[in-house]
Amino acid sequence: MHKLVLLRHGESQWNLDNRFTGWTDVDLTDTGREQAKSAGYYLKKEGFTFDLAFTSVLKRAMRTLWIAMDEMDLLWVPVRRAWQLNERHYGSLQGLNKAETAEKYGDEQVLIWRRSYDVPPPPLEKDDERYAGNDPRYANLDPEQLPLTECLKDTVDRFLPYWHESIAPEIRSGKNIIIAAHGNSLRALVKYLDDMSEEEILKLNIPTGMPLVYELDDDLKPLKSYYLGDPEEVKKAMDAVANQGKSKK
Amino acid sequence: MHKLVLLRHGESQWNLDNRFTGWTDVDLTDTGREQAKSAGYYLKKEGFTFDLAFTSVLKRAMRTLWIAMDEMDLLWVPVRRAWQLNERHYGSLQGLNKAETAEKYGDEQVLIWRRSYDVPPPPLEKDDERYAGNDPRYANLDPEQLPLTECLKDTVDRFLPYWHESIAPEIRSGKNIIIAAHGNSLRALVKYLDDMSEEEILKLNIPTGMPLVYELDDDLKPLKSYYLGDPEEVKKAMDAVANQGKSKK
Repeated sequence: MHKLVLLRHGESQWNLDNRFTGWTDVDLTDTGREQAKSAGYYLKKEGFTFDLAFTSVLKRAMRTLWIAMDEMDLLWVPVRRAWQLNERHYGSLQGLNKAETAEKYGDEQVLIWRRSYDVPPPPLEKDDERYAGNDPRYANLDPEQLPLTECLKDTVDRFLPYWHESIAPEIRSGKNIIIAAHGNSLRALVKYLDDMSEEEILKLNIPTGMPLVYELDDDLKPLKSYYLGDPEEVKKAMDAVANQGKSKK
Repeated sequence: MHKLVLLRHGESQWNLDNRFTGWTDVDLTDTGREQAKSAGYYLKKEGFTFDLAFTSVLKRAMRTLWIAMDEMDLLWVPVRRAWQLNERHYGSLQGLNKAETAEKYGDEQVLIWRRSYDVPPPPLEKDDERYAGNDPRYANLDPEQLPLTECLKDTVDRFLPYWHESIAPEIRSGKNIIIAAHGNSLRALVKYLDDMSEEEILKLNIPTGMPLVYELDDDLKPLKSYYLGDPEEVKKAMDAVANQGKSKK
């Protein structure tokens, strides 16, 4: 039996401001740092340890991992950063306040963009300062690989090859793995692991900063999954995510 | 021309307590964290950037790297942790107060252990709780690879193969590299790069938390090297290291 831990980053400044973040490199709030520390506390308390960690190249995920691993006294564990674990790219919505966007386009359109499986938001132009091609962390990528916008299906399509090529073999080899990433890149993985429909995955909200444990069999099929932490906190966090993207009328 | 930056970790708690640290996983003091932040500040100010970072598996070096890279907004840069970059192993002196050890064995013997090239301190026994074989971070190593004590020559002998196999090829490929490590593992590298004699290297003190820049030609021979930061601070830090290990008579 293999144990895999998924950890969505703690609250970021733009979670708090209710802005579409996507690939924008926004940092954690103090609350987000506390959530990361709490994640490490519960993981340590339950006797978890890790041989290898994966994270995105966005600091809210990298810092969440760092703080949790620091709390567990596991800073020595190897960490692999991969852009494939980044949050879903939100195209030209990146940086916009979600409530304002909802007022402009209507709750329904925003919900479609946030929660539809295959309808991406309007793309960024390549001369937009938000274009990832301007960022040195993506300098080694083919421009074809760099998204201008993504629907959840696109996120799944760039995440799963990385899962199969880089993460799954390490789990099969017996390593205990933690993945610190984002709401939608983790949703992409959960959809695959739990064989969920497009409709089901759209309803699933992964709370910030709360370890999601998967127990997997030798074929990496889930035997069970559960959150670590206070059950009330889990429910509260999931409700909070569900209420995002509604206009503040 | 290649630029390589060496960064000795900031002040640790046992630097402050004047204890032999070696492979003990002691954390930074607040001063050490400030030094790491200052290192990042000067590196950023001077326009440095990095494609790849190396560090040891000891938290005082890993945290120094993290803080400096955070200050430079470079947390996304890949980091490789390697035990070969660990501090020199101080054998059974690990944990002892340097002044007390000097009073017990005499200034001269302590200076020999600290500064001789090929005389190691008394080894740890394998049933000592300080033995690295009890630590999961070294679980993948052959027991033969795990030191029970080291002289500087031993540190050189385990560091240089890693340099040749893992670091030098990355520099040759054009990557900008930072190595965050320890007084003696960096001394091992400086001895090699500057082709210093055993006597010369024993006199060289690398200050904590101060970036040491090497400009290297295509054969990785140094063209020049210099510290980044306030020259007075550099001198003060080097003097402080030179005064360690003397008994407090």
